[in-house]
Amino acid sequence: MYALNETHDPALTSWVASANTPDTDFPIQNLPFASFRRQGSSEAFRGGVAIGDQILDLAAAANSGVFNDLPLTALMACAGPDLNPFMAMGRDAWSALRLALSQTLRAGALAESALTNCLVPQAQAEYKLPCHIHDYTDFYTSIFHATAVGSLFRPDNPLLPNYKWVPIGYHGRASSIGVSGQSFPRPCGQTKAPDATEPSFGPCKRLDYEVEVGIYVGKGNALGDTVSIDEAEDHIFGLCLFNDWSARDIQAWEYQPLGPFLAKNFASTVSPWIITNEALAPFRSAFTRDAADPQPLPYLTGDNNTAQGGYDLTLECFIKTAGSDAENKVSTSNFRHSYWTAAQMLAHHTVNGCNLQPGDLIGSGTQSGPDHKEAGSLLELTRGGKEPLPLANGETRTFLQDGDSVIMRGHCEKAGARRIGFGEVVSTVLPARVRA
Amino acid sequence: MYALNETHDPALTSWVASANTPDTDFPIQNLPFASFRRQGSSEAFRGGVAIGDQILDLAAAANSGVFNDLPLTALMACAGPDLNPFMAMGRDAWSALRLALSQTLRAGALAESALTNCLVPQAQAEYKLPCHIHDYTDFYTSIFHATAVGSLFRPDNPLLPNYKWVPIGYHGRASSIGVSGQSFPRPCGQTKAPDATEPSFGPCKRLDYEVEVGIYVGKGNALGDTVSIDEAEDHIFGLCLFNDWSARDIQAWEYQPLGPFLAKNFASTVSPWIITNEALAPFRSAFTRDAADPQPLPYLTGDNNTAQGGYDLTLECFIKTAGSDAENKVSTSNFRHSYWTAAQMLAHHTVNGCNLQPGDLIGSGTQSGPDHKEAGSLLELTRGGKEPLPLANGETRTFLQDGDSVIMRGHCEKAGARRIGFGEVVSTVLPARVRA
Repeated sequence: MYALNETHDPALTSWVASANTPDTDFPIQNLPFASFRRQGSSEAFRGGVAIGDQILDLAAAANSGVFNDLPLTALMACAGPDLNPFMAMGRDAWSALRLALSQTLRAGALAESALTNCLVPQAQAEYKLPCHIHDYTDFYTSIFHATAVGSLFRPDNPLLPNYKWVPIGYHGRASSIGVSGQSFPRPCGQTKAPDATEPSFGPCKRLDYEVEVGIYVGKGNALGDTVSIDEAEDHIFGLCLFNDWSARDIQAWEYQPLGPFLAKNFASTVSPWIITNEALAPFRSAFTRDAADPQPLPYLTGDNNTAQGGYDLTLECFIKTAGSDAENKVSTSNFRHSYWTAAQMLAHHTVNGCNLQPGDLIGSGTQSGPDHKEAGSLLELTRGGKEPLPLANGETRTFLQDGDSVIMRGHCEKAGARRIGFGEVVSTVLPARVRA
Repeated sequence: MYALNETHDPALTSWVASANTPDTDFPIQNLPFASFRRQGSSEAFRGGVAIGDQILDLAAAANSGVFNDLPLTALMACAGPDLNPFMAMGRDAWSALRLALSQTLRAGALAESALTNCLVPQAQAEYKLPCHIHDYTDFYTSIFHATAVGSLFRPDNPLLPNYKWVPIGYHGRASSIGVSGQSFPRPCGQTKAPDATEPSFGPCKRLDYEVEVGIYVGKGNALGDTVSIDEAEDHIFGLCLFNDWSARDIQAWEYQPLGPFLAKNFASTVSPWIITNEALAPFRSAFTRDAADPQPLPYLTGDNNTAQGGYDLTLECFIKTAGSDAENKVSTSNFRHSYWTAAQMLAHHTVNGCNLQPGDLIGSGTQSGPDHKEAGSLLELTRGGKEPLPLANGETRTFLQDGDSVIMRGHCEKAGARRIGFGEVVSTVLPARVRA
């Protein structure tokens, strides 16, 4: 866990004026990381930090003469197209750079004149994945999602006996993860109607999104080593928004006995900005279970990392249809409802000696809240497609149509802290490509 | 599919004398690829081709002055530590280099004097993974394995209704794949005895191997594009031996509903040599189903790629225990028993637009044959640990013990063709590391 320090002071303001507006996602208390370049340019992608409506170009900042020592070494690790070298440096380097950026972007800082030349407006930027994602693992940490989906796939047996003991996870596809702005054709595949004797082939008819939080691994571990629950927070670089697209009809037919495959691996989309774990320190949340829930095994509890292991992170989801500019809100949920913490996911993932690498992405699983309206997927909101969801613009949806864009936003807000935001992840469904 | 050509001529011999012995795995008809350097040296790893008991150093060969045009370009793509650039070049480049190597390594070739200096004895070499494996997917293509394992995990429902329609696959962990020689600690994890009320934590008690064939993707496809069944063979670079280690007790407790995770991702081991798809042309095998089996959907059949879609590849497995030098054979099976072909796996994997990348590894799933003695895992050979397996050295095994090494070998043999071998994959179980 990170202690609060001067970088979290809600009174801090920046000489970048747009960082001081009440509704910005990127005040000086946030300082998230991405990989960017100017739109349509042939510039190399390099690391950037968001400040208000600007991006601090970290390759330029490394050459500005403003920074020295560990912060300068850290900046140099951010100057290439992938942030993996910086993520691998570990917590001391991350904190040192955060402090140095906070001090130099602060109102009144002497560095203002030198760093002004290192700013690029976000409106002129394009992004790529912030790092090379070696492996992607998806967990299943919302007990409300697991119960609701389980009741659709297995009405007689919705929540399996292992759920409250094992942080259930599975490996996903790294190659098809894209950054916000991604579009992809509706997937084709095999499906079988419950009353059909044979499967058939065609475009997915039950295309869905999943509102997830992505967790980026910073420091890795060697094969055979474990990351204990008490060490796990030091291995978390930061969080992003994550849409884990799902083809429900393909999933229902293929997932036994080895889990989801083609139902998931056609696309997954991350937000461009990684909100660092240190920036999230003011928003850690209590971790509560029902009194009747079992105490997890010792390797999942540790000394102190579960008591405030959650994140009070509001997650909003919107659908924008092809024929309208309206962003129709379909749900609001919160990551604090997760049954398992990020530290528990990491400790579990490595308890058998599995090696994590800097830049690995860990999905939280769909974050549905306790109320039906807080569900993080259409599968849940429409009760398996049986109850069409009315949109504010007058349309309805059971599952997604071609041309639909799904937008997810997230923010942390709390009395006594400066609100920080996650930006957004938006991606669009294109028509299926059916071969002649 | 590859046609037979002069490189397959069984009468060919090499000026490397060890390539002409009847029992070598690496006659001039084989010419498999690896990444190697001299043992214990600080040399850079680079591509190599096995010939008899020697390795042709491809970086040295590129500088030998012997090669020109496309073969030279291909050699230059093999000169670095990872073969991905060569794998990405596609079939024309692979074939051109194979033909050039066959002609220059042939008995009587003028290149002998120049290439003699490019040989490194295999006895002096060490290997790494032949390429960067971006994503690893494991299939489940032996119906005999699926039925036997299904009957242990789900006695009432061994072979699920989707098996004969869907080439079942799931994503595995790329980071923990190692090359032959890998050792790893016995994994720890949660298990639950059927009669226990709660799970417990500790070292795996049912550690197992899986005899698999690995398929390396050559040319990839863009996100949203598909690889049709008739194009799929052009995307297959070659095959290797693959041991997909499995912790059966961890698997039984964790695998519902999203599939295996910690039961598999602690280690997987490949053989150093990739046998090219072209080298395997003489050994393609008929693809037979029972008359009662359903005809697969059209995207899995195509015009001609299933009739000879199998590989007649003998797979042998041995256990070497800590206290003895004996290699105790425990099974012999054959990849021709696979219910789904490699081309079907690739076509299925991409039918939803999932992008494959050069160097991706596709596991065949455990290759068990129709007879119980041909099973590719201890789980099957011991019927779930109930019938200890006698070893030739007098010991018995239900599951693996610390210090056990598992050795897998493979070869193709047929009248009218020169026998070729796969070399071996060997790896060793170390004691669990239990934290105090």
